[in-house]
Amino acid sequence: MTDTDSTGPVTDVTEPTDHTGMRVLTLQDCLTRLGSAPVGRVAFALDGEIAVLPVNHTLDGLDICFRTAGGSKIQAAIDGDRVSFEVDGFDPARRWGWSVLVHGTAGVVVDEQEMARLVAISRPPWVAMDAPSTRWVRISTREVTGRETLGS
Amino acid sequence: MTDTDSTGPVTDVTEPTDHTGMRVLTLQDCLTRLGSAPVGRVAFALDGEIAVLPVNHTLDGLDICFRTAGGSKIQAAIDGDRVSFEVDGFDPARRWGWSVLVHGTAGVVVDEQEMARLVAISRPPWVAMDAPSTRWVRISTREVTGRETLGS
Repeated sequence: MTDTDSTGPVTDVTEPTDHTGMRVLTLQDCLTRLGSAPVGRVAFALDGEIAVLPVNHTLDGLDICFRTAGGSKIQAAIDGDRVSFEVDGFDPARRWGWSVLVHGTAGVVVDEQEMARLVAISRPPWVAMDAPSTRWVRISTREVTGRETLGS
Repeated sequence: MTDTDSTGPVTDVTEPTDHTGMRVLTLQDCLTRLGSAPVGRVAFALDGEIAVLPVNHTLDGLDICFRTAGGSKIQAAIDGDRVSFEVDGFDPARRWGWSVLVHGTAGVVVDEQEMARLVAISRPPWVAMDAPSTRWVRISTREVTGRETLGS
């Protein structure tokens, strides 16, 4: 995990900013936003490029879990690759935005009880996930960082 | 570029789908969405991880251009790295979503006339970009792909 101060409220007047003047989010605020965002983006290396694909995710403790119907995402998970996961939000009218970035390691969930628990705590996926090839992937979180434009 | 059919309308009943059953977007539709999205995400390798950072971008032909106030994004550009750029949209109430992914090579814009033109065709950035370290970065596009959930 990062050394982000997880105790201070987001509205603290002493809140830290990064080198571009953006507000640095606390760990707790990052987790709250990771948990409430309906869609996040998994980023991983694939054939010499970086793939970035939206998924419907579930926050499980500090980890990010999602279903996949197969293909490149599941391959990254099987490989135990380093992956990233991003959520963000923005309001063009207010010129306001924030983002949270997770660095972690992807792995396929194989324990049936764990899979059943993930189904129970998750919102239904938006695309059909009833194929035999469907798997749950867990991104074991190593680091979480977040930032937000000032003036919101 | 991909071999995506750029002539068919999105609502064509013969529209192709990918292995997960999602609709494959035409190149023209991908470009339209890249041009209208107020925020996109630049993904690039950084210190053994993948960074994913939102930016206010401008579509210039097939390329993606954005300002940066310095730091890791500009470093990736200077290095001529392979980077990706993603835009998406979703409506949780309709369980509907789409995404467009660009693979390209990042480079710093050094020509002053080109910079002036980019300023003229761009929306104002949401964060202060008046520091001397501010640069324009161009992602020279190699490939564009997009997909959308069915039923929208």
